[in-house]
Amino acid sequence: MASGSQKSQPVKFQAPKGTRDFYPDQMAVRRYIEGVWRKTSINHGFDEVEGPMFEHLDLYTHKSGPGIVSEIFQVFSGKDEEELAKIRGGAAAPYALRPEFTPTLARMVASKAAELPRPIKWFAIPQHFRAERPQRGRLREFVQWNVDFIGEESQRADAEVIATAIRALERLGLESKGITVKISNRDVIDDALRSAGVQTENIAAAMELLDKVEKLDRAEVQRRSQNMGLDITRFKDAIALKQTSANEAIAALEQARPLSVANGSLIDNQVISLISELGASGIVHWCEVDFSIVRGLAYYTGTVFEIIAEGERAVAGGGRYDKLIESFGGPSLPACGFGMGDVVLGNLLHDKGLLSEEHYLQDLRPDAFVIAADDEAAKHLPRIVADLRKQNFHVRHSYKTTRNVGKLLGDASKSRARNAVILGKELAENPPGIVIKNLQSGEQKELPLSSLPEELRIVQQQR
Amino acid sequence: MASGSQKSQPVKFQAPKGTRDFYPDQMAVRRYIEGVWRKTSINHGFDEVEGPMFEHLDLYTHKSGPGIVSEIFQVFSGKDEEELAKIRGGAAAPYALRPEFTPTLARMVASKAAELPRPIKWFAIPQHFRAERPQRGRLREFVQWNVDFIGEESQRADAEVIATAIRALERLGLESKGITVKISNRDVIDDALRSAGVQTENIAAAMELLDKVEKLDRAEVQRRSQNMGLDITRFKDAIALKQTSANEAIAALEQARPLSVANGSLIDNQVISLISELGASGIVHWCEVDFSIVRGLAYYTGTVFEIIAEGERAVAGGGRYDKLIESFGGPSLPACGFGMGDVVLGNLLHDKGLLSEEHYLQDLRPDAFVIAADDEAAKHLPRIVADLRKQNFHVRHSYKTTRNVGKLLGDASKSRARNAVILGKELAENPPGIVIKNLQSGEQKELPLSSLPEELRIVQQQR
Repeated sequence: MASGSQKSQPVKFQAPKGTRDFYPDQMAVRRYIEGVWRKTSINHGFDEVEGPMFEHLDLYTHKSGPGIVSEIFQVFSGKDEEELAKIRGGAAAPYALRPEFTPTLARMVASKAAELPRPIKWFAIPQHFRAERPQRGRLREFVQWNVDFIGEESQRADAEVIATAIRALERLGLESKGITVKISNRDVIDDALRSAGVQTENIAAAMELLDKVEKLDRAEVQRRSQNMGLDITRFKDAIALKQTSANEAIAALEQARPLSVANGSLIDNQVISLISELGASGIVHWCEVDFSIVRGLAYYTGTVFEIIAEGERAVAGGGRYDKLIESFGGPSLPACGFGMGDVVLGNLLHDKGLLSEEHYLQDLRPDAFVIAADDEAAKHLPRIVADLRKQNFHVRHSYKTTRNVGKLLGDASKSRARNAVILGKELAENPPGIVIKNLQSGEQKELPLSSLPEELRIVQQQR
Repeated sequence: MASGSQKSQPVKFQAPKGTRDFYPDQMAVRRYIEGVWRKTSINHGFDEVEGPMFEHLDLYTHKSGPGIVSEIFQVFSGKDEEELAKIRGGAAAPYALRPEFTPTLARMVASKAAELPRPIKWFAIPQHFRAERPQRGRLREFVQWNVDFIGEESQRADAEVIATAIRALERLGLESKGITVKISNRDVIDDALRSAGVQTENIAAAMELLDKVEKLDRAEVQRRSQNMGLDITRFKDAIALKQTSANEAIAALEQARPLSVANGSLIDNQVISLISELGASGIVHWCEVDFSIVRGLAYYTGTVFEIIAEGERAVAGGGRYDKLIESFGGPSLPACGFGMGDVVLGNLLHDKGLLSEEHYLQDLRPDAFVIAADDEAAKHLPRIVADLRKQNFHVRHSYKTTRNVGKLLGDASKSRARNAVILGKELAENPPGIVIKNLQSGEQKELPLSSLPEELRIVQQQR
């Protein structure tokens, strides 16, 4: 594209690659999903928070290292000559579009930790930005639901955030068939790595290897594990035994059998108490223990989990991050949470037929579509429409000059209004009247104008 | 700040200057205001849309000229070496954080103009970013409500967008006293400038002069107006007469007198028909014609307006922009709209005492705060809480291990719950019972556990 021109010659512009324009239907879908996220979070006792769209770049390098700089969008002020000179000299920009919410959350908690009531249960529905090549399930701008439970070390917190995620999926119409919460635990993996020969200094590298094991060829895995003293067969055997026992415990709770002591002796305390809490929350049938889940990010401690739908990328992922708040200058506070993006979830809902108009337009249907049947009635239309809107009704009308009632009733249906209100000769009666047609039932009747609000309220409650 | 460190040494970070952290109370206020904006827009027949947070920089220079580059935040991908090389070589970044919504709107309308049903009535509640020095009423990141009515050339459209703004202010508790919609018209000013001696080629410069006239000293105004042949006294006299007549027309409608022909002959058609439509919409008492309002932006045509609250910057501003869609490559489409930011409005509501908890927490009160009075009851608490949440109730509980009911009732009140639900020895009865305390009335009673959802629903409806 050419540089700017004040002459305003017609030019077609496009949205930046990997971003989205939300026209009314797409926006209604987005608000529908966000609405379920918000309502579910609030019902589970989480308070909404939000931070800036861009942060100091250092906030991200502090958490993830300098490698993150090439993965994010950098931001600078066009006003600040000094900033500009530094960037031209080779420095990174001072700000970055947020690629995730956790650093903002950690910063916000750290800076007011003393005055915030505990536990801190927060959710956010922010936009995020990643400078990567767009592909199915991955865009450069997306919306992500973040739910975080800070200041509670018991597995009750882990179970509550998982339950919050599951309840939202249920409300969106999804069922446990084909969707699994895969639960793992980094402490269990850590233990098994040590018992299979890995020394403390190699634990982080071993975790990284496990996270990538599916993507590497067998020889490479062999070479790397030998280098860190990891007996991978011994590791796999130990972890498989624990996994089987944990899944037996899940099966027991699913069938309303008590957890046996035999299970308890084999499984680590954290895992068994999480399973027990998931049982109490009524969602154990969504869950499966799978110790192949490691989650790449270095800051996870203890529980980690992913929600996996068949044939899709992970719908959500999260876990414990007990050391993170402290690393951002806050007090030592246990914490856990998850993120769920709108792109993979949207694809999943769409493929399952759960994004039809009856779902996302429910709250957007007009109460009335007002029609003027003659020119005299047309003079009264603006005042009647304004009065109804002032009483908080959703009211639409045609801006065409036609008085063809049949055609206008067609427009009313297209607007998905609950009722058509027809202004005609009845307006001249004493008291003035109108005709209302219930567009669901087809029933049509004459009413005094003054009874219209009451009638609209009755139809509202019928839905 | 030092560059990133993977060692995670504790560091205190701050939000970038001029941006905001929204902790739960601030976020509740923001969502309350946005909720009123959204509901009012929908009731007035507008559909919500959204675009990307950043756009191609050219989109803004196309509309506003190259000068805008120094007023905005520039964005580039850290991944793209070629982009980086260009910026280091002195070029502007390829993207910009959006400083306003209108260019995105114009781009979206232009690119789908053929398939969009007319009229196009859209609203959006996007964040915007300006690289300027923060001060009262102006931040570097803010939320702005945008309402746009495209494809309707009659003054009905102008009146509807103004009515939408006014109804939102009313719902937020504001009254017409001390708040005025100052209405002006660029065609009227254009005519008056021409009749006062300004030639076509100087009209734009004359508009700019009028927009800044309050900020310039008298000698400077004199010098500039002479240069463009503007007889400023003659201009002011002509415009004052029109303004008086228009405000007489407003007074007539306010007192339910008809508009006299005498008014009509003096005032331009656009202005008188807008006043008439404002009368039909029942908001004429909020309005005043003030031809000193010019609105700086070059793209306005016809009606322009500002909503002014005593002692504050403009709460909202807007007008017609009949040529803009075309200049972005779309068809010729008349259009009008306004923007209302959250910062000035928030200050105004706060100063008038309209942002107390009873306003913004209304939809965030828990239905129940559940208390375990003994250890046996505590075992049942997670399941009972999970069941209620599954039935869409907002339920909270204490994570402390205390069984001190008095203390826990205090926590329940602090959470602003409608009811406290006390689990105790009644759970062992047949059928299991609970004690519920209505925290508004203080009334306390025993109920079967199975009747709890019904009771919570009854109390919900009492608010």
